[in-house]
Formats: sequence, structure tokens, C-alpha cells
Amino acid sequence: MIMETLDRPIRHAKIAKNMTVSELVRSLEGTAFGAGRLCEAVDIYREMVSDRECTKFFGLAGAMVPAGMRQIVSDMIRDEDIDILVSTGANLVHDIIESIGLHHYKGTDTVDDVELKHCSINRIYDVFLPEQHFAGLEEKLQPIFRELPDKLSISEFLSHIGSKLDDDNSILKSAYDMGIPVYCPAIQDSIIGLQAWLYRQTNPLNVDVFADMKGLIDRCYEAKRSGVFIVGGGVPKNFILQSMLVTPKSFDYAIQLTMDRPETGGLSGATLDEARSWGKVGENARSVTVYSDATITLPIIVAAAKGMR
Amino acid sequence: MIMETLDRPIRHAKIAKNMTVSELVRSLEGTAFGAGRLCEAVDIYREMVSDRECTKFFGLAGAMVPAGMRQIVSDMIRDEDIDILVSTGANLVHDIIESIGLHHYKGTDTVDDVELKHCSINRIYDVFLPEQHFAGLEEKLQPIFRELPDKLSISEFLSHIGSKLDDDNSILKSAYDMGIPVYCPAIQDSIIGLQAWLYRQTNPLNVDVFADMKGLIDRCYEAKRSGVFIVGGGVPKNFILQSMLVTPKSFDYAIQLTMDRPETGGLSGATLDEARSWGKVGENARSVTVYSDATITLPIIVAAAKGMR
Amino acid sequence: MIMETLDRPIRHAKIAKNMTVSELVRSLEGTAFGAGRLCEAVDIYREMVSDRECTKFFGLAGAMVPAGMRQIVSDMIRDEDIDILVSTGANLVHDIIESIGLHHYKGTDTVDDVELKHCSINRIYDVFLPEQHFAGLEEKLQPIFRELPDKLSISEFLSHIGSKLDDDNSILKSAYDMGIPVYCPAIQDSIIGLQAWLYRQTNPLNVDVFADMKGLIDRCYEAKRSGVFIVGGGVPKNFILQSMLVTPKSFDYAIQLTMDRPETGGLSGATLDEARSWGKVGENARSVTVYSDATITLPIIVAAAKGMR
Amino acid sequence: MIMETLDRPIRHAKIAKNMTVSELVRSLEGTAFGAGRLCEAVDIYREMVSDRECTKFFGLAGAMVPAGMRQIVSDMIRDEDIDILVSTGANLVHDIIESIGLHHYKGTDTVDDVELKHCSINRIYDVFLPEQHFAGLEEKLQPIFRELPDKLSISEFLSHIGSKLDDDNSILKSAYDMGIPVYCPAIQDSIIGLQAWLYRQTNPLNVDVFADMKGLIDRCYEAKRSGVFIVGGGVPKNFILQSMLVTPKSFDYAIQLTMDRPETGGLSGATLDEARSWGKVGENARSVTVYSDATITLPIIVAAAKGMR
Repeated sequence: MIMETLDRPIRHAKIAKNMTVSELVRSLEGTAFGAGRLCEAVDIYREMVSDRECTKFFGLAGAMVPAGMRQIVSDMIRDEDIDILVSTGANLVHDIIESIGLHHYKGTDTVDDVELKHCSINRIYDVFLPEQHFAGLEEKLQPIFRELPDKLSISEFLSHIGSKLDDDNSILKSAYDMGIPVYCPAIQDSIIGLQAWLYRQTNPLNVDVFADMKGLIDRCYEAKRSGVFIVGGGVPKNFILQSMLVTPKSFDYAIQLTMDRPETGGLSGATLDEARSWGKVGENARSVTVYSDATITLPIIVAAAKGMR
Repeated sequence: MIMETLDRPIRHAKIAKNMTVSELVRSLEGTAFGAGRLCEAVDIYREMVSDRECTKFFGLAGAMVPAGMRQIVSDMIRDEDIDILVSTGANLVHDIIESIGLHHYKGTDTVDDVELKHCSINRIYDVFLPEQHFAGLEEKLQPIFRELPDKLSISEFLSHIGSKLDDDNSILKSAYDMGIPVYCPAIQDSIIGLQAWLYRQTNPLNVDVFADMKGLIDRCYEAKRSGVFIVGGGVPKNFILQSMLVTPKSFDYAIQLTMDRPETGGLSGATLDEARSWGKVGENARSVTVYSDATITLPIIVAAAKGMR
Repeated sequence: MIMETLDRPIRHAKIAKNMTVSELVRSLEGTAFGAGRLCEAVDIYREMVSDRECTKFFGLAGAMVPAGMRQIVSDMIRDEDIDILVSTGANLVHDIIESIGLHHYKGTDTVDDVELKHCSINRIYDVFLPEQHFAGLEEKLQPIFRELPDKLSISEFLSHIGSKLDDDNSILKSAYDMGIPVYCPAIQDSIIGLQAWLYRQTNPLNVDVFADMKGLIDRCYEAKRSGVFIVGGGVPKNFILQSMLVTPKSFDYAIQLTMDRPETGGLSGATLDEARSWGKVGENARSVTVYSDATITLPIIVAAAKGMR
Repeated sequence: MIMETLDRPIRHAKIAKNMTVSELVRSLEGTAFGAGRLCEAVDIYREMVSDRECTKFFGLAGAMVPAGMRQIVSDMIRDEDIDILVSTGANLVHDIIESIGLHHYKGTDTVDDVELKHCSINRIYDVFLPEQHFAGLEEKLQPIFRELPDKLSISEFLSHIGSKLDDDNSILKSAYDMGIPVYCPAIQDSIIGLQAWLYRQTNPLNVDVFADMKGLIDRCYEAKRSGVFIVGGGVPKNFILQSMLVTPKSFDYAIQLTMDRPETGGLSGATLDEARSWGKVGENARSVTVYSDATITLPIIVAAAKGMR
């Protein structure tokens, strides 16, 4: 039986001058290891986004916005390639910062962090962020908080913020414009959380932890088919996958881009096969994990798929 | 100046028969790489737990409870080596499951996950968990939910649950008994979240996202000195570290046990030096990251420190 | 001083339909983390290959030939983008196997290896190789061995083999055709070594361990400028870098593509900065390590550079 | 069938004051992930070293000697827990340096490498080595080279060097004293190689690449049972494993300590199961890979096993 599987000889990639990203990916289709998995991811992604009856979840973890991946995500939202976004709080904080015209800067990871501290520069690996930007964030958020209803869900909270951003490249604004819910279970675990703490010292604000569960799970129940694109892992990965647990359904397509590893047992590095044992990913679902830096693989996958539609 | 630093020759470890963990760590004190960092972690940990004026934070991420690290954490709480616990939701779910007498089982990571699914066994790397256990969890949690006030914070919510567990080895019960707050920003991102969703279909329950911020930040303000022991990374790491941002203080001691790497820019793998640029970890704080499996390094550090007090 | 460095705002990548690989890389030029490093690698690579006075070393480790990267390397040789190749033995074994018309096959990493053994299929992660192919290799190599002089260096030994291969896509054949030396310090650590053991049971063969040192080091002495492109790490990385140690020179350009990490202290994962302390990489040399799967990054770098010349 | 395997409940580790390393490992026996694998490694190691008919191979890669693991390895040799040693060249270079009374020093990985260069200090992660030590190495090696026969194998070459070292803690000296062969396929890929290059400028020296194959493979043929303990991966791992390929046998016990990962396809990170498909590791062999820093796990395994004999 295994012998019969020897029907796909490795075809060696060939580089041509001025080849498009799609052509490069096609040239990698006969290869193995990470390159083979990348091609599989492109293939699954293409099938997923061209499937009009597929509800498309996107999990955004890791410092993707500081790294320069913001536009890719907001374009995916506007292109209707994301139906439901689950993000870490940090990515949304940095999205808001950019939306008010403040920048992140290219720095270096080999630097004296105490010296940076003295210069009031915060470091995210090789990205520098002036601490002053958080004053700008405060100036933006506090007035928005004042207009909020006293009681709401996290996604409503984020939708309100998105509606107030004047930047079409913003993830939150794009989600608002497109009517896409943004879930962020650990929203308090971010500078938004600290801003809310500040606000609540003198004002009421009640954002309900569990209020988003119903909407999310309802979408899972209703989905004819469903796919998930996971960048990084973390809370977004688990929150998306677990939402299927209470339904009779499971994900039909699953892609993860991560450098995390399975052997330490954490959910971020867990294989998508492991998710099949739970019924989160379907028995016959197509799934692949590309173990490579997501700031490299996300752009390639999106570019390759765009060229192949 | 650097030349002058050549004053600590590498001393090669020597293994003796029947040596204690403390003796092994002492024997590794002249070594480098991971072994050297492990010794540094033991040293910082000893200083931290023996410092009576130090508020000790503990961040628990990764599937440490399924792996068998539950007793170590609950003993640390009862030994007063943890003042404030921040955990992922999953670790608390698995703690509750064990507290009602249900077990996790040693399995294998090389297994057909679809076959597992057919047997209703959920896999966490090489740990197997019968799906049926979640029925037991439901039976335990739903009555507890009924006794909750309509409105509360996540730590109050978890404290209520802890008070109802009849198992002194439980992390939640130990925290309740010792008056230790348990924070869990992404509590909805766990089976507890799914249970809350179920409960809320017919009952009111309002857990406030931001309600815990004040108590946590107040503790940071009040702390004469503070230390943080981070297992894994994730939300617990960031939530603890960011709580210092709005105070004039910073952590004096910091230990992280992780396999995550800095180069992808995510917070889990970020160096503790990076946290200095933010002012989360102090300029002169002692800190170390041990890049090794935490199920190995956590027991060693705790055992070594215990033998050296 | 650091404040002044805040002059390079992160520019967010934007994906366009049908963009070329070069355009994608240009779009990533304002980004950080792995994507930023990838662009730096493309830039260094372009500078290196367009520098006519630069001697270009290439280190090939990891199972790049089984994975489908053979053509890329042989094309680089024929395009004169490699002047000196240092390889693991395994990559050369698999190159010879392909050159006699035998294939590697796309398989899977989730498979019962004992069952594979029963089918006489050898596995290299998700690549399958019929054991029978090694009989073909033997048939090819033994007659070549018979024509060898009694005493020679490893690079002469490999050059002889290369001259006998009838496949222009072969790495060894391309190197032979282009007059490029192929060094392979641990040649005995491969099936070629086992074939030599077999041959020597009845025939004399004396390949001299140290005979290649002179030629390699002479090239280092003579090089006006030098660059090194390291795929993977291992012996090729160290052998290339150490060859500079006995000269007054050092590498002017250095690129490494690897997933290995620095923290465990091994040479494969060591930063290229570490190599500066030894004088292997120059004080002012341009260098970058891209921590990502090389089967993905190598094709991108080569394709992007090709489009930009 | 899988259901029946739910017979090993996870038993949570418990830390006691002054526990021995053996007691700690026993306490971890009911745990999972890295801790569970560590216990499995201790168990296999104990079985292997207590099996008098088992030929014990040890593969030494990574900068274990600079890190302070030299004494552990030399003690293992003198305790007859290693029958055949395969090492990288670098570990032997650093062993010789220590044997002539020169030290490695504890430094730091966060340092300006150009400044180190100016101080003539070479860095190996957080270990510093004065460049001057290589002059001491030269002074030691050149006279030894003069006494060598004109033609010899690498293991004979290393045995000669070992015989001239006046340090019972030396790995090479211990191997010489105990009559243990030391194989080092890529010996030229080390400062020993550079010293040989220097010597050969004025003297004949012919070390035969393939001469060691016969002795090594004969030992494999003769072995009643065989075990392999792999630290790191690299050439030592492959050279040991491939030596079984041409025999009808395979390894009965196999342990690997590494941080390398399988997904990139390189041999260093390949699972030991993969080696079963090749017939290198036996179908029914006991094997385990502990994914954790070897400077931590090697001492624990050796100490735990010593306490349990």
C-alpha cells in the first residue's frame, strides 16, 4: 500500500528571471519539507477563499502589526477573505496607533535595552516604538470610551473603536466597514486594558467576558463549511478551534503558520492533527502547518493565491 | 574591560552517586549555556522567595497541568512562594477535572487522531483525555454557576469555583485557601468559557472583563519589591509584565522557562531584556530565561531551591 | 543617538495581483522580523553576486537535495554565483542518485516507520526513498572508484565522480563542468563512505583528510573580497568560516538560512555576529541570518535577486 | 484498543526537600511531555549501561566541552559507559585546550563582538575563549604531529594525541587509557585541521579518510546488542547510525538529547523513528528523544542513573 504511494517523484524547483510569486509557488509544488507545506497552504487557502459557502476565520497572534503585516490583514478583510477575526489585544493596540498617524520604526535586536529605556523607546524585537505614542493612544481612546454604552461585549467594544478610526488601512476600521466581528478574548491583556483601567477610575464601563460566545458559536452552527487561517497560535488559535466543540461540525480547512513546536505540549505548537482528536478539525478536512516565520509565509501565500485566482 | 571579565573559568560539572538536586545544581554552577542559565534561575528564585518584602507573581501557560505539574504549583501556593497567579484558562479547566477525581492519561504523540476521535479521546501531545470528562466538568460547574452573584470579576469567579473544590492538591482550591488571587484574562478561551456560554442560555451571568485590573495594578503599586516567575509565556506573561507599566516601579526579579524564540517577534519568546526597554523589568533587576522544556526545568528549580534554603 | 535612529518607519507590505517575487520582496523592505531579514538577505546576496572581485562560498547542509532544491544549487553554480561549494555527504549522495535517473518521492511524516522498513522505503521527513536506489548508487560508484588514482584529496575524489555523471542538473556535474571545487569534510559520513568501505575490502583507496586544506585556504588568502551563503549550518558552515581564521582576511558578506537557535551554543545556530569575535566575519561585513525554513527562503532569495539584476 | 491504553493516569510530580536526582526523576515518572521523555531516557540509559553485552556508542556534537560537560563525558568513558565515541572536531580541540591547563571562561551572549575581537577573545555563545589559547594548542600539537607515522587513520591520529595529554579528566586521554576508539569524521573541520594544514606545509602527513570505516563497522557486526546515546545530532549522529546500515543488525537502544526539530528535514532533528525506516534503529528498539537543552538533560540522566544502579 505504501509502495503504491511512490507515485509523486520530487520535482526540483527551478528559478526563472522575473517569475511571479504564483509561478514560484508552482515551481515548488513538487518539493518537500517547508516548501511543500507552503504549496499545500496556498492550495488550501485558494480552495477556502473561493468556496462561497465557507465561513472564513482568521486568528492573528504574534506582533504582526508592528512587523508590517497590517495592510495585508486589512486588505484580506476588504477582499472578503476573512469573515471572522480573532486577534490578540496587542495587534489591535498597534493598529490603532498606526491609524492615528503614529509609526513603528525599524530598529535592531542587538541594542542596550536600558539605554532604550532612557530614551523612552519600547522594543519589540527589531521594532522600536516611542513610548510617547501611548499618550497619543490615550488621547484617542479616552473620548471613544466616553461614548460607549455602559454594558457591552468585547466585539461591540472593538467595533465602536473601529468606527472611530479614520484610516482605511486599519484592521479595526476595515472590520467595522465590512461588518466583520473582531473577537479578542484577552483584550484586557494589552494597553487597551490599561486604558480601560484608567477610564474606569472615574467612569463606569462594563464589558462582559462571555457575551461574545453566543455570536461566535452561532456562526459556527450556521456555517455550511468553515475554514481557519491561524497566524502564530496563542489565544486566537484556541478560541477559534474550541468554538466548534459545542457544535456537531468541525473545520473543513485549516492552515497554521508558526514557529512553535509540538513537543512541549502547548496549544500554540500543537499539530492540526491533534485538533482532529477533539473534533475541532474535521476527519477529512484539509490542513497544513507551515513551520516558518509568518512574516515571510503570510505574504507569499496571499500573493500566490491572488495570482492564481 | 572585557579582558578583566575573564575571571570565571568554566568549571566542569561532575556527577556523584546519590547526589541531591541541590548538589547537582551546585555542580553546574560553573557551566554555561542552558545549564548555566538554570543555575542562575535557581539563584534568582531563591533570592526571590526568601525576600519577605517581595510580591511574587507566577505566570502559568502551556499545558502544565495535563503534563503532571499541578502538584508543584499548588505546593508553591501553599508554601507561600506565589502571591499572585495568572493562568491560562486551560490549566484551570484541567485542574478542576483532576479535582473531581478524573484523570489525564499518559498516551503517545504518534497516533492516528481520527481513531482517537472515534474513541472519544482528546489528545494533548502525549496526554490522552476521555471526552467524557467534560460531562463531569459540566456537572461540577453548572451548580457552582448558579450560586454566583450576577456580576463579578474573573478572579472572583475563579475564587468561587476554587472554594467549591474538595481537593487540597488543586491549584484553584489552594489559591482560595491561601487567599491568593487567580487572574485569567482569557477565561472564555477555555472549556470554562463554553460552560459559561451554556449556562447563559438560560441564566444571567455578567463577568466583567476589566474589573480585575484595579486589584492587580494596586498590588503592583504597593509592592516594595516584586518578582515574576513565568512558565511558558502567552497571556500570563504579558498580563503580569504590563501591570507594572502604569506604576513607577518595575520587576526586581524575573525568570522565564520557555522554548519559544525571540526571532519571530512574539511576546512569548521575547527576551526579558526587551522588557527592560518598556520599564516592565527593572534596569538593575536580575533576570534569566531558561530555553528548555519547562516540565523539566520547573521541577529542578523548585527542588534545588528547596534543598538550599 | 538611538533617538536619531527613528528614521525608518515600518512600511506595511501590500500584496498586488500577479506581483513578481522581486516586487514582493520590495514590498517587504519596510517590514521587520523574518520578512525584514529576508529583504536584507536579498540585498546582501545581490551585492555579493554582482561583486566581480568577491569569491563566493556556498555551504550546503540539511537534506536540501531530497527536498527538491537540487536544481537551484546547480543553476547557481552554472550562473557563476558559487565559486566554492562545501556540502554534507548526504546532499551529494542524493545528487548522484537523481543523476542516474532515480527519484525521491513525496511521502508523509505521519507514517509507521516499521511498516516503511518492511516495504524497504527509507524516510527523510516527508520524502520517501526506495532502499533499492542504493543498489543503483553502488552500480554507479564502484566502477568510478576503480578509475581513481590510489591517492587523492576529497575534492579530487568528488570531482572524479562529478565528471562521470551524465546529468547537467547535477550539482557535482555542474561543479565539475564549471571548475568549481566541492569540499566535503565528512564525506565518509554518508553512503559514499559506506561504498568506499565496500570498495576498500578488495582495493586500495587513499583519500587524504587534510589534503584539501591548502587549496581552500589559498583561495581565502587570494580573495580580494569574499562572501558566504550558508544553508543550514553544520560542518559546511564551520569549514568555510574557519578557513578565514589563518588568513589576515575575513568574510565581507555573510548570509545564513537556518531554523537552529543560538541559545544551545552549537555552531549551527550561532549568530554571524559571534563569528566576528573570531575574525571569521569582518567587523564591517554585512551579514544576516534568516530564521525560517531554507526550502522556502532559498528559492525566494534567488528568485528575487534574479529579478532585480 | 486505544481505550484500553487509558491505564496510566498522569501522576503529578511532587517536590520534597533534599530529594536526590534519582528521587526527582522517580517523581517525574508519571508525567508527560519533556519530563516524561526524560524519565524514559533515564530508563533506557540504565538498561543500556547495565547490559554487559551491549556495545555503547556515544555521539558528541554541540559545544559541550566549552559549556562544562567535559568531566561528565570523560567519567562516562572511565566508568565504561561508553565503548565507542564519535565526536565533532571542536569538542576535541576544546578538550585538548583544557588538558594543557588553559581555561574557557564564563562570559555573556549580549556583548559587542567587534569589541571582543579587539580584545582577542573568541565567543561561543556565553563562553569566552582567549585567542591566545590557540598558540598554546599549536605548541602542544606540532611536536605530537612530528611523532606520527606518515600514514594513519583519524582514530589512530586522535589516539596518538590522547596518549600525549597529561590530564586524566581529558576525554581524549580517558579514551586512550580505556582503549576506547574516538572517531571524528570531520576532523579537518576544526582547529586541529588548521594545525594539520600548518604542519603539512613542511612535513608529510597522510590521514586516511576512509580507514576508520572498517573498524567501526566490524564493531557493529560483532555487537551482540548495541545502544547509542546522541548528544546534539550532527555528523556524530549520522556516522553512528549509518554504521549499522551495512550489517544485518540495528540499534537496540537509542537516546537523543537535542533542541533541533524534525520539520526542516535535517538529520540532526530527525526523529529516531525515522531511523527505523532505514533499519538503523531496530523495529523493537527502545528509543526516545528529549527536546531540551543537553547541558541540562545530560547531567540529570547520568546523575539519576548513577543513583538507581
